Amino acid sequence: MLRFLSLLVLGGFIAGTVNAQGLLGFDDAGAAAQLELEADFDSRLSAADQEEWLRILSRDPHHVGSPEGRAVVDFVAERFEEWGYDVEIAEYQVLFPSPRTRELELVAPTRYTAGLTEDTLPEDLSTARTDNLLPPYNAFSIDGEVEAELVFVNYGTPADYEILDRYGISVEGKIAIARYGGSWRGIKPKLAGEKGAIGTIIYSDPADDGYGAGDTYPDGPYKHESGVQRGSVMDMPTYPGDPLTPFVGATAEAERLPREEAPTITRIPVLPISYRDALPLLEAMGGEVVPREWRGGLPITYHLGPGPARVRMKLEFNWDMVPAYNVIARLEGSEYPDQLVIRGNHHDGWNHGAADPISGLVALMGEARALAELAAEGNGPQRTVVYAAWDSEEQGLIGSTEWVEHHAAMLDENAVAYINTDGNSRGFVNIGGSHVLEKMANEVMRDVEDPQTGVSAADRRRARIEVNGAAAARAELNSRADLRISPLGSGSDYSPFLQHLGIASLNISFGGEASDGSYHTLYDTYEHYTKFRDPGLVYNVALAQVAGRATMRLANAPRLPFEYTGLSDNISLYMSEIEELADSMREATLSSNARIDSGVYDLALDPTRNIVAPLKKAEVPYFNFAPLKNALDELEQAAADYADVVASGLPASESVNKLLYSSERELTRDDGLPGRPWFTHHIYAPGFYTGYGVKTIPGVREAIEERQYERVEDEIFVAADVISGMAARVRELVER
Amino acid sequence: MLRFLSLLVLGGFIAGTVNAQGLLGFDDAGAAAQLELEADFDSRLSAADQEEWLRILSRDPHHVGSPEGRAVVDFVAERFEEWGYDVEIAEYQVLFPSPRTRELELVAPTRYTAGLTEDTLPEDLSTARTDNLLPPYNAFSIDGEVEAELVFVNYGTPADYEILDRYGISVEGKIAIARYGGSWRGIKPKLAGEKGAIGTIIYSDPADDGYGAGDTYPDGPYKHESGVQRGSVMDMPTYPGDPLTPFVGATAEAERLPREEAPTITRIPVLPISYRDALPLLEAMGGEVVPREWRGGLPITYHLGPGPARVRMKLEFNWDMVPAYNVIARLEGSEYPDQLVIRGNHHDGWNHGAADPISGLVALMGEARALAELAAEGNGPQRTVVYAAWDSEEQGLIGSTEWVEHHAAMLDENAVAYINTDGNSRGFVNIGGSHVLEKMANEVMRDVEDPQTGVSAADRRRARIEVNGAAAARAELNSRADLRISPLGSGSDYSPFLQHLGIASLNISFGGEASDGSYHTLYDTYEHYTKFRDPGLVYNVALAQVAGRATMRLANAPRLPFEYTGLSDNISLYMSEIEELADSMREATLSSNARIDSGVYDLALDPTRNIVAPLKKAEVPYFNFAPLKNALDELEQAAADYADVVASGLPASESVNKLLYSSERELTRDDGLPGRPWFTHHIYAPGFYTGYGVKTIPGVREAIEERQYERVEDEIFVAADVISGMAARVRELVER
Repeated sequence: MLRFLSLLVLGGFIAGTVNAQGLLGFDDAGAAAQLELEADFDSRLSAADQEEWLRILSRDPHHVGSPEGRAVVDFVAERFEEWGYDVEIAEYQVLFPSPRTRELELVAPTRYTAGLTEDTLPEDLSTARTDNLLPPYNAFSIDGEVEAELVFVNYGTPADYEILDRYGISVEGKIAIARYGGSWRGIKPKLAGEKGAIGTIIYSDPADDGYGAGDTYPDGPYKHESGVQRGSVMDMPTYPGDPLTPFVGATAEAERLPREEAPTITRIPVLPISYRDALPLLEAMGGEVVPREWRGGLPITYHLGPGPARVRMKLEFNWDMVPAYNVIARLEGSEYPDQLVIRGNHHDGWNHGAADPISGLVALMGEARALAELAAEGNGPQRTVVYAAWDSEEQGLIGSTEWVEHHAAMLDENAVAYINTDGNSRGFVNIGGSHVLEKMANEVMRDVEDPQTGVSAADRRRARIEVNGAAAARAELNSRADLRISPLGSGSDYSPFLQHLGIASLNISFGGEASDGSYHTLYDTYEHYTKFRDPGLVYNVALAQVAGRATMRLANAPRLPFEYTGLSDNISLYMSEIEELADSMREATLSSNARIDSGVYDLALDPTRNIVAPLKKAEVPYFNFAPLKNALDELEQAAADYADVVASGLPASESVNKLLYSSERELTRDDGLPGRPWFTHHIYAPGFYTGYGVKTIPGVREAIEERQYERVEDEIFVAADVISGMAARVRELVER
Repeated sequence: MLRFLSLLVLGGFIAGTVNAQGLLGFDDAGAAAQLELEADFDSRLSAADQEEWLRILSRDPHHVGSPEGRAVVDFVAERFEEWGYDVEIAEYQVLFPSPRTRELELVAPTRYTAGLTEDTLPEDLSTARTDNLLPPYNAFSIDGEVEAELVFVNYGTPADYEILDRYGISVEGKIAIARYGGSWRGIKPKLAGEKGAIGTIIYSDPADDGYGAGDTYPDGPYKHESGVQRGSVMDMPTYPGDPLTPFVGATAEAERLPREEAPTITRIPVLPISYRDALPLLEAMGGEVVPREWRGGLPITYHLGPGPARVRMKLEFNWDMVPAYNVIARLEGSEYPDQLVIRGNHHDGWNHGAADPISGLVALMGEARALAELAAEGNGPQRTVVYAAWDSEEQGLIGSTEWVEHHAAMLDENAVAYINTDGNSRGFVNIGGSHVLEKMANEVMRDVEDPQTGVSAADRRRARIEVNGAAAARAELNSRADLRISPLGSGSDYSPFLQHLGIASLNISFGGEASDGSYHTLYDTYEHYTKFRDPGLVYNVALAQVAGRATMRLANAPRLPFEYTGLSDNISLYMSEIEELADSMREATLSSNARIDSGVYDLALDPTRNIVAPLKKAEVPYFNFAPLKNALDELEQAAADYADVVASGLPASESVNKLLYSSERELTRDDGLPGRPWFTHHIYAPGFYTGYGVKTIPGVREAIEERQYERVEDEIFVAADVISGMAARVRELVER
């Protein structure tokens, strides 16, 4: 009875929405038919199916190159075949380092040998299934044996090293111990190495995702004392994918760099450890007490070092070449078979990988089955839909990157968009991606019901911003029709599509009501997932509803649901941010330099402590932002005019649709970003010194942030040219 | 040689200062003579003497009523007598609860018996001297034996209980466990009792002043795991002093309240414990995980409860009547013997009390000896200087309050000002107090050299604000000639002078480069003090220089150095704060109520957790602040005119000086603050729900904060009347 009532409410909700607002790219009749199709699609999604697939696919550790990984590939490929897909297993030969030796020992002033293993828990039977388990390590650390004193570098970001400088502490010849967080992990050894450290240890501080954050596994979702976050430390902000084959698919016959020349392998050895192993190391450190903001949750006083704690670390890896298998399943479009809507999620895990990546993968499988059933009943997609299950994402987006590099020309010609998912959990919908898809993404969030509250996913997200958001975000709820989707940095398989080829992309998940305590640990299991992250997998179904709608609307819309006012509005925001960045850096630099000159630090600092004034910095000049503003102006006008064209309801030809879907390519340049030509997108990129975190208009923003002022105006011209190119493309769309 | 150079520099500094700026209340010749006198005074201060007195006076625990306390009294009195003072030991009979039974036991779900004792440390011989040691307890807790589940209440402030309400958690019938900090300790049992708790435990979280803050004793200054902060929980915001004799001196023959009727004794039993004892209790708690801001530094997940941790607590006290001895030493003024400048510091300690109070007391003794020597050479004070060493400050400002109440009429007639000190340590000068003395305080800070940097104490304080201060404070460094002195709440012996009688007061200390980890614990020893807080006692000498100058200038100035533009400017600031408080509460209430009504909390909150929206609050009306503004306007004009009088260099008659020193009384009203008539000052008071923390224009501010809107306009009239009264007084001074 309750269930019936809830369906009624849902029905009323969708009907009301349609009448009020329609669907971008569809006329009224088309929108009604599409929504009916989506309701049918929803009815074919099953939490029970997804839970069964989750149970099977996360039963064992299944990393790239392992027999269990191959079993996952086969299971997924067989399902797609059963459901009627054309299935190909795209195989690449990729470099895969796995640990042969991992030793970490405190040798002075006391002795401790790190355990470096995670505990099997009687409460979680999966944790006893450890055949072919990859022990805790950071992939693409080089081999090495080093012994030196420890220096505590907090998160190991550039700002952290500025603080260490004030204490007169260098990591030169030392081993840096950094906590997870604050930046992507790969930045920690990269920066430590640049600063002269000879090794890096990364540990998970319990304040961040252990007992400080909440009850630990198995009592709660947070990090067990023995849990270690594995992960790649490949220099992905330079290029992701197989380190030996940048720019080309890692086919058997591809030309390869010698491993010694691969620039994305670390320069110094790096090892991740648990907080249980970190405690004796940190406890043995001396020197100045860390600044207040650097304190963690261990029951000790944290010190900067160097030493007297001295550690020896030895790491050796099997540098194997292994096959990476992408499952590529194709459902031919009835009207535009050459136009590809690609929907992907990786299948490899560091361990059992229940959340990461299987939770996203089983949502994708649910979508694929429902779509195939609709197709079998004559309601198939008008454009071709490609489902992809990627291998070796964990080592550096390797499966997806090699496939994208391998098929770059075809994708450049035919790819309409790429929809990515990865881990999922209870909570609030998050969509990031290309702002040409922002309006469509909003319509999708509007049309999917939140499983816990019965309102739309969009309304629940709005409520969260209303209650927890920053003032600016709250104010915008009233002044802006659409929720902003966040720009994408890196961290999952959208990077090669979006940032290498300029294919409009979305990354979709739910989250915010469960934790990341299990991330990349032995405890990312079926038991953990179904107990804490999404009991009953109701948010898995919601994820399939959101990603499925995005896929189907892109596949079926007579006029592709690309839109440009959202893009111009977000670019405008990024430009304001960059101008404010320059202004605030200029003001802060002037004021800090003046304070340094005035000598107040000598008076204000405690003379008994080893801390001095910061160093003076070069003053920030004024920059000519006019080219960017002029380009934005063109884009804003063209975008407004194109919105009028859409509102007029004119149908779109195939050539107009091609102009639409290829428009994101206008935001790329063949020669890419400074120092990292693989990244061709000039609006979105992962930060060179932040890793996963996005930098928008990265050429300009990073030149300012890194104080390379002489580069700024060149970068402004490039970015302005890119925006002008997009404006011209939109103008062309208006004039068609 | 270095010493000679340093004297030269110091000499140059003072000479430069004098020529440039003079001394308030002195003509040029008088200022030069006064400065010469002060240089002579400085030369008689000895760090070695102070260190010796510190060693002697902090050798043993010496609380009120103990033989060791009496020995301290005798030692101090004998010194004063040696130096030529008229010494009286003013004795009062006061209620003194000391522990007979202290039991605390976790009875479920596990068992643990709290140790409730502090460890003797081989590195600190003082900690082995424990005769007549008061064990950890909170004075003026009632007796009681209670057993109940624990609820974690964070700091136990009103805001914390609003959060607990959102979790549906009540302390009714429970035992509240609160951490030290966030408010004065006495507020914790007061509020918990008001909310229905049957007991309170207060512990020191290691994040606040234990290993989380820095190295713990004896490696560093921070709190040893067994350290317990003792302290009074008497309801001092109602009235301080002996609970049985409010308003009158606790002489042998005074009328006394029956103890059961004393309103300042707690309603529920309360006990302080160490973090070592707190750990098993907190670890045994369940329920919701605490909000992020409530997390502490123990290696556990903190939970709100209630239970399952259940504790039994039994407290019984000896409710003895004991003698409290104030040492009152008088040096007759040569010109105005009836006008009293009073300089005080307490002598009783919770334990050895090296920092609190002996560090301040030995500075006072150094000053007193130097002043007596000057007097013996014919350079004595023109007004009478009274040095006071108070007893039983720790139990609730008892010695000073009883003396002030006992001599209220005399003090009202004759007291020029009161200068207080208490604990001291390395760092930056802090002066709080009556703003009629702000300019004099600035001149004093200008004229004393910081021992570590050689610049003036004022300049070092400015440098700290420049480097660490809030933006508003930094901006003011350039726009305001004087550093602001902070308004006084409570926490030391100035309260009865300032807030009960309206005697202009200052409270002076150095600090900021050493910690409070030893505060009220067994570890407040000579060893701790000389190793960590002020090695060589150089800041003890600086304290004597600052407090000595303030005392001597008040004693010698032909025109008393009272000034009113600083007062009006600070009152203006407080009025702006209160208007902003009302505005921001109004806006926040409207916006919060609207959000509650809109139902967004139901959507934004995790439905699996026990947390709901906040409660709606009554909207904040607009208030008529015009009376305050008009009164301030009168005061500003009169203050400016009086500044002209001072600048004109006119001499002051004895009656003008009396009008000056009694002007602070204009800020009082006989019927006092709402609900607490003992507090007669209407500009400065300790907060009724914050304790030591000051509330300026407290009648108005607290009525708004407590949302008792119907009281606000009455309070505005009272405060405006007080300010008008002061304006009239200043106008009278102008017209004389």
